[in-house]
Amino acid sequence: MQYRSIIRILGLLVAVFSVSMLPPALVSLWYQDGAGVPFLLSFLICIAAGLLIWYPNRSYQRDLKVRDGFLIVVMFWLVLGAVGTLPLYLSSETGMNLADATFEAFSGLTTTGATVLTGIETLPKAILFYRQQLQWLGGMGIIVLAVAILPMLGVGGMQLYKAETPGPVKDNKVTPRIADTAKHLWLIYVVLTLACALAYRLAGMNWFDAVGHSFSTVAIGGFSTYDASIGHFDSSAINMICVVFLLLSAINYPLHFAAMRGKNILTYWRDPELRAFLFIQGSLVLLIFIGLLRSQVYDTTWEAFDHGLFQAVSISTTAGFATGGFAYWPLYLPILLIFSSFIGGCAGSTGGGMKVVRVLLLFLQGKRELNRLVHPRAIYSIKLGRRTVPDRVVEAVWGFFAAYALVFVIIMLLLIMTGLDNMTAFSATAACLNNLGPGLGDVASHFGDIPDTSKYLLVIAMVFGRLEIFTLLVLFTPAFWKN
Amino acid sequence: MQYRSIIRILGLLVAVFSVSMLPPALVSLWYQDGAGVPFLLSFLICIAAGLLIWYPNRSYQRDLKVRDGFLIVVMFWLVLGAVGTLPLYLSSETGMNLADATFEAFSGLTTTGATVLTGIETLPKAILFYRQQLQWLGGMGIIVLAVAILPMLGVGGMQLYKAETPGPVKDNKVTPRIADTAKHLWLIYVVLTLACALAYRLAGMNWFDAVGHSFSTVAIGGFSTYDASIGHFDSSAINMICVVFLLLSAINYPLHFAAMRGKNILTYWRDPELRAFLFIQGSLVLLIFIGLLRSQVYDTTWEAFDHGLFQAVSISTTAGFATGGFAYWPLYLPILLIFSSFIGGCAGSTGGGMKVVRVLLLFLQGKRELNRLVHPRAIYSIKLGRRTVPDRVVEAVWGFFAAYALVFVIIMLLLIMTGLDNMTAFSATAACLNNLGPGLGDVASHFGDIPDTSKYLLVIAMVFGRLEIFTLLVLFTPAFWKN
Ligand SMILES: [K+]
Ligand SMILES: [K+]
Repeated sequence: MQYRSIIRILGLLVAVFSVSMLPPALVSLWYQDGAGVPFLLSFLICIAAGLLIWYPNRSYQRDLKVRDGFLIVVMFWLVLGAVGTLPLYLSSETGMNLADATFEAFSGLTTTGATVLTGIETLPKAILFYRQQLQWLGGMGIIVLAVAILPMLGVGGMQLYKAETPGPVKDNKVTPRIADTAKHLWLIYVVLTLACALAYRLAGMNWFDAVGHSFSTVAIGGFSTYDASIGHFDSSAINMICVVFLLLSAINYPLHFAAMRGKNILTYWRDPELRAFLFIQGSLVLLIFIGLLRSQVYDTTWEAFDHGLFQAVSISTTAGFATGGFAYWPLYLPILLIFSSFIGGCAGSTGGGMKVVRVLLLFLQGKRELNRLVHPRAIYSIKLGRRTVPDRVVEAVWGFFAAYALVFVIIMLLLIMTGLDNMTAFSATAACLNNLGPGLGDVASHFGDIPDTSKYLLVIAMVFGRLEIFTLLVLFTPAFWKN
Repeated sequence: MQYRSIIRILGLLVAVFSVSMLPPALVSLWYQDGAGVPFLLSFLICIAAGLLIWYPNRSYQRDLKVRDGFLIVVMFWLVLGAVGTLPLYLSSETGMNLADATFEAFSGLTTTGATVLTGIETLPKAILFYRQQLQWLGGMGIIVLAVAILPMLGVGGMQLYKAETPGPVKDNKVTPRIADTAKHLWLIYVVLTLACALAYRLAGMNWFDAVGHSFSTVAIGGFSTYDASIGHFDSSAINMICVVFLLLSAINYPLHFAAMRGKNILTYWRDPELRAFLFIQGSLVLLIFIGLLRSQVYDTTWEAFDHGLFQAVSISTTAGFATGGFAYWPLYLPILLIFSSFIGGCAGSTGGGMKVVRVLLLFLQGKRELNRLVHPRAIYSIKLGRRTVPDRVVEAVWGFFAAYALVFVIIMLLLIMTGLDNMTAFSATAACLNNLGPGLGDVASHFGDIPDTSKYLLVIAMVFGRLEIFTLLVLFTPAFWKN
């Protein structure tokens, strides 16, 4: 392991990330909300600490191997989470203890979007902006993680996307490839964000809310500047804009890139994962819509459609935004949506969950087994579009499901031991492991009232989810640390 | 498809099964409980119907193919379930409607052991005996199903056991092999039952209870002749006997056969599934014991051990017997046990759940993936003991998990739609799909108070579980019905 190279990178990372404390400080200056000091302080602490860590190791620029990659990725999220916690903990306005601040920062950075806060609209603008920005930066990290790094590390079958990544492919040379991929895809990310902010502004949000919500929309994060979330605006136009940009953000980013480079919209339709994604979204919207009509929660058909569409897309893409009335729906509808969040977005997007392509492979495997029962001697291969999926990838996906289920059950049982009831423990685990955000039961509106131990457990769940389980789990194997 | 051959077999089956109505009739005569008529009537109806169905098709004795096998197995359970419903429905003593009688009969026959009845001890002896006998006969069916038929049909990776089945192996010739296997294993089953009944008698049960509970113990069924289940006897000796015979019954029957034929007790230890089973049981007992000591539910350490051991083995082997106090345990302990019932007994036993060997393969696959992440170029195979498991089998096991999860979620959502709360719907689905028996919430003590639609849904879950999902699911594929 190239420990000193890794430490050098982390030092540099903290120094660079310290810059992200400045925009909230500027926001504070602009709005004169008096909440700027913790951000300036955090900036100074982080840039000093980062440079101090970096300086003695600055000459360690060795080529990194796959194994170093796992350690860097895990440390990347843990260190940034810790740094992100700092200003929230230092700020006196939020009344957060360390568990609260840690929960909120990791929830932001992993784009989970679960919050411990209430009365959000009364908080200083600087803190509101900071939370939204955390999600946006987290989203940037996730795209690179999901598109360039996890496929290279071979986590959970994502080697499937190895050859598809834009940019030159060089095995074992991590840096140039990541940088190249990042440039292409971040451009798309920034363009989507700008378009989303503009659309929100035109639909009636003020600039502050428009920018803030565009951050948490394209990151599929779900943080809002209001307790009532998107429901605060009570606007069908804003709901629709949110739905459109959530769907766009939940699409595989290299697919966006391919479609743009080829200037061909049909590129989208040729992707089997996207077709499965649209089929799932369409079915969910239809089921929820029918369920709402039958139970007559809303007065008009339009309202049922508006809220049904919004909530179906928001939960199933793992954004976690809310409009009103969700709590009054017949219980099986929220439960259905919580289950759909296990599927989540497409691989290589900012969405959470297990990813559409993995669930598609699961389904194709089940279908293959049924066919094999009827014709035991026939040879069936699993195909995505016209491409045969190597058995190696299918096996990795299965390993992923096994690990996901195991981590889910363990975290849920530990949560029940901390005193949460079943419904709360189940939905909180799903909400955090799937990087969804809101749960049901005691965590339906916020996570502020659960014990601190539960909060830390859920932080672990968020990191497990974001790192697709294996990246973190592999660090716990003896083989990883053996030379 | 050899439809007329299949109909011939089913006719014969009904005629033979009609004989099972006579022992309860004799019990009624002996105890003079006045409940014998429905059983005599059922006997006459069934033997007449069976012979009527059989007679016109008696000359159709063609060799059956694998595909016919699926249809026969499914029809076998559906037809016997329907026949088993008859006397319960005809009897005026139980006050059961059709849904109740169907639920009770299928619950007995699939050895689920969930009941809609309360005040069981006040029922006529004939009905009590009949319920216990249903479980015992169901257990006989399950052994043959799991050991001889499912491996031959290749369901859910059970072809792993194809070569191990005692008796001559002839592909595509179903009948002689099944008969031979059945004879060997039923002998073990009968011997276990006799030993269990004798032990119960010596520990203080009367003969009626001893025989009745031996039936539901070796079948891992869980029906009792008392509302309080085994807890009625309030005897540590009886609890221990139950634990020993449940553990014996949850072991792969061909393994019993091999150990007896070789007269070598070490044969057991050489089996990787059995070692995993003992490890799981040991861990559960320890966890539950510690949990009970910490929460001080019981007054003495011995009581905590006694009830902890009993309940851990009873739920995790999917028997579902109860002693007192389970309802007062801290909630995470029952939840942990409900989760353990997904693992269940060993393959080729009367236990339910997904079976130890499949979960072991899941775990080995997860471990392999972690190793592969660290050493991407190394070749890892999955081994059970010294034997390499073919990829084909591992894939089938994965297909099994996919189907299990899918069926679970669908049935649970449908149950919530029929008005059950989450906890009840979750635990009822687990209890019936895993052929466990008791649930939590509204179905903690019995299933009598839920809507009829929910009961029928749970009957479907029981059959899905007992037929290891695929055997039933394959009938819903177009490929199955194509020539
Ligand atoms: K989210
Ligand atoms: K049972």
